[in-house]
Amino acid sequence: MQTMPGTTGAHALVRTLVDSDVRVCFANPGTSEMHFVAALDTLPQMRGVLCLFEGVATGAADGYGRMTGHPAATLLHLGPGLANGLANLHNARRANTPVVNVVGDHALGHKALDSLLESNIDALAGTVSGWVRRSASIEDLGTDAAEAVAATLTSGAAGEGGRDPSRNGTSGSVSTLIVPADLSWSTGGRSARPVKIPAPAAPSEQHVRSIAKLLRSGESCVLLLDGPALSEQGLRAASRIERATGARLLARNWAARQRRGAGVPHVEPLAYRGEQITAQLRDAHHLILCGARTPVTSFAYPDRSSLPTPPDTRVHVLAEDEGADTVLALDMLADHVAPHTEPLLAPSAPPPLPRGALTVDNWAAVIGALLPEEAIVCDESITAGMATLHAATAGSPPHDVLGLTGLSIGQGLPSATGAAIACPDRPVICLQADGSAMYTLSALWSHAREHLDITTVILNNSSYAILRAELERVGATAEASAQLFDLSRPDLDFVSLAHGMGVPAERAGTAEDLARQFRRALSEPGPHLIEAVLLPHGG
Amino acid sequence: MQTMPGTTGAHALVRTLVDSDVRVCFANPGTSEMHFVAALDTLPQMRGVLCLFEGVATGAADGYGRMTGHPAATLLHLGPGLANGLANLHNARRANTPVVNVVGDHALGHKALDSLLESNIDALAGTVSGWVRRSASIEDLGTDAAEAVAATLTSGAAGEGGRDPSRNGTSGSVSTLIVPADLSWSTGGRSARPVKIPAPAAPSEQHVRSIAKLLRSGESCVLLLDGPALSEQGLRAASRIERATGARLLARNWAARQRRGAGVPHVEPLAYRGEQITAQLRDAHHLILCGARTPVTSFAYPDRSSLPTPPDTRVHVLAEDEGADTVLALDMLADHVAPHTEPLLAPSAPPPLPRGALTVDNWAAVIGALLPEEAIVCDESITAGMATLHAATAGSPPHDVLGLTGLSIGQGLPSATGAAIACPDRPVICLQADGSAMYTLSALWSHAREHLDITTVILNNSSYAILRAELERVGATAEASAQLFDLSRPDLDFVSLAHGMGVPAERAGTAEDLARQFRRALSEPGPHLIEAVLLPHGG
Repeated sequence: MQTMPGTTGAHALVRTLVDSDVRVCFANPGTSEMHFVAALDTLPQMRGVLCLFEGVATGAADGYGRMTGHPAATLLHLGPGLANGLANLHNARRANTPVVNVVGDHALGHKALDSLLESNIDALAGTVSGWVRRSASIEDLGTDAAEAVAATLTSGAAGEGGRDPSRNGTSGSVSTLIVPADLSWSTGGRSARPVKIPAPAAPSEQHVRSIAKLLRSGESCVLLLDGPALSEQGLRAASRIERATGARLLARNWAARQRRGAGVPHVEPLAYRGEQITAQLRDAHHLILCGARTPVTSFAYPDRSSLPTPPDTRVHVLAEDEGADTVLALDMLADHVAPHTEPLLAPSAPPPLPRGALTVDNWAAVIGALLPEEAIVCDESITAGMATLHAATAGSPPHDVLGLTGLSIGQGLPSATGAAIACPDRPVICLQADGSAMYTLSALWSHAREHLDITTVILNNSSYAILRAELERVGATAEASAQLFDLSRPDLDFVSLAHGMGVPAERAGTAEDLARQFRRALSEPGPHLIEAVLLPHGG
Repeated sequence: MQTMPGTTGAHALVRTLVDSDVRVCFANPGTSEMHFVAALDTLPQMRGVLCLFEGVATGAADGYGRMTGHPAATLLHLGPGLANGLANLHNARRANTPVVNVVGDHALGHKALDSLLESNIDALAGTVSGWVRRSASIEDLGTDAAEAVAATLTSGAAGEGGRDPSRNGTSGSVSTLIVPADLSWSTGGRSARPVKIPAPAAPSEQHVRSIAKLLRSGESCVLLLDGPALSEQGLRAASRIERATGARLLARNWAARQRRGAGVPHVEPLAYRGEQITAQLRDAHHLILCGARTPVTSFAYPDRSSLPTPPDTRVHVLAEDEGADTVLALDMLADHVAPHTEPLLAPSAPPPLPRGALTVDNWAAVIGALLPEEAIVCDESITAGMATLHAATAGSPPHDVLGLTGLSIGQGLPSATGAAIACPDRPVICLQADGSAMYTLSALWSHAREHLDITTVILNNSSYAILRAELERVGATAEASAQLFDLSRPDLDFVSLAHGMGVPAERAGTAEDLARQFRRALSEPGPHLIEAVLLPHGG
């Protein structure tokens, strides 16, 4: 612990974050966070990135954390600032992404006065955070910050202050530190050293043997992969198991981060609809969860079950202890059942470029045909991509896909921001549905300000298409009110919207347009946006 | 109570809302709200207005409630949908606006499964609502809805199901009704009759006499007006008191709704800064709160008090009982101390049109010079308007001003949406700071879709100007990090942004531009946007 009698609490806080290797702060500050902002000047190791809306800041921190395995900070202003960031923190929570929120609050003596911006920050923070603390004294601020960082990683596998980019950043959690303004502005802060992160629990050898026995039993097994199991290391182990035992592999759909493409084992996604999942698991005697949860449908529907696993399928958990290392368990399992088997790697086989009018069916093939090496794909294509994107990119160069983990829309553009800052040498492709784009559109401005190499493709079908499908599915019908899912009248013009935030943009109406514009965007530095105007199925 | 065995819970819910005179629903629905949407088809008395972000829906409901005194409904999707709407519900709470939120939740049997969108809706709702209920059975749904509406009005003055547009809609509260999807889709719902709203408590005659005695004592008195006291009726009574007794009047700044302009008594605003408030109250022996709270600064600052009322000033409350009728109390007080005095009404005296470059100092005079009769002014101009707007519009035709009550930015464009739907025959002028506009910009799309007569003036000073001032004020300094308040690099182009959402737009660089464009916008139906590019003080 370092005592700094002449420095502010905010300085000790930022110093501690920097020492704990938190190097980026996605910020939308207000009056109560001014000393934090001032501290950034003297600590250039922390990069401040201005976001024009808190939902952009939190979504960016999520994207950053997924790519680095280590938290970024957010800087949010009081309860309303946190409220604006909650939806993407919900996605981060569902992604197990490490994120440290720093939320400024009123000075202690001011809180009881119920001034205009007063609200219940603690209640809001509790809904998304694995760890919440309100700093009680300036002496504690450094320690609190160090513990906040550690808490984001304790269910993960990172070492002290270190980051391991070969792992997925998908075994952490959200911490929220609430900092009264008077602690920030007072002097006498003490920074604190990083808290040592315990190594994840070693998988139980005995338990791994029992799973191995299942796999050798001759009964049909399915391995459902999620979290770190979808890293390259996890997928390679799973593929060895698949080849040696005949077990089938499935990957959680819209996972936090999945390694895909040529040279990576290919895994079919778990379907979105319950009855499709039931069909996928129909013959399975055993469902083995590898970092995954038992399948649950996203919504309940009249007269349908929310639990699609067939009743005769027995469910097992590969790494039973909380925080156990799923990837290590997969490696151990593979060494048991497939000691001499190599994984089956997807061949390089990008799809041919489609031609003609752009439709819901063919746009993904353009992306798959032209996807660059080591791309980071932020996928919020929703209905536009559900049926086609996975297959279209299976043979593209190796890449990572970040999915809409919590189904809270408005994640794509912000997470692309964070991913691009985390990985400045990798191209980021943001596949963004139109309706969802409008939630956090100002992320485009941050793309431009930070000159991030992000190519955004807006999939414009002029509707909340998923809701049209859902309306029917829940057994409701609506005619006049179907206008509540209609995004035309007026049409959104994403080219103008992008220009308004300093991002070069073009509109594509044919597959040829999209291919030409996508190639150009990839060849130039900085952000680009392409509005892909999609006709319905069949063109 | 009306039993409708063949109809859904959602239908009974909407039917009850309609019967309780809730006639507009600002909606951003999802799967769990589909039956509500379907019910809208059979109940055309409820107008569904699609908003592309929940913060627009809640801000619109706030603007609507301020203008009608009666709640609109919002329709929000699960916890993340409510979370996205919280910041403007915070403003509604601080405005005492009646609003009924309908938040869909998962079906009861689905909740325990912790599916991807599951979150703690109740905790979120509690932070902004005066009334929260989770419907427990389909039989209760109608009754719950009727009670939700009544709860928004119980501190107000409206009669059963009725609205009284001569009053300000500023004595209500926010209700949140959480509706599990299975209650919505099941049949056997019963609508419920409106709950009778009790009349507000009559002011105590004895207490009013004691205040009258103060006013006649020869000691210096200040009446601080807020809420319904800022209605025309309240202001007229206050003006009579001022003229007859020499008491001074002050109006809360950024009030929920204030009547202003020619023919209305003019009242100086309470200042924003604590030391300015202390100076305003320096000679006051008595501060009489008329629907207002004791002044509290918005933020604490090192070595400054948050309570700017001078220690020797005694504070009194005009209408002591909660829910007592402040306007009636002012009338009674005026009849005591000023039985034969007429109010002093502001003369018609719009400012002359300024000329030359547009600056922070002169833009408001253009608005004041051209403001149309019975305009509704949604004021989120913040620093751009703080010093000049009030004076510039004091002699304009009579109008209402809706202020940023909770200081949670991003309210202006949404509240204009709601005000225009509430009052289709009145021109709505939205004065919107640039940084704040980006929070809820998609409100412009709703302006266009609903063809609302809203003229938005974006005050573009390319910065979070208030934060530059605050940085200095809290005793912090920052150089490199001052970029965190800088909205240039790239410049936001609001003309392109407006075009992208179907709103005609122009840019004004001179006072002459602004005058010409403002006149044209007012003369044409439907929405318009003018980007006023402001030079700093002094041009």
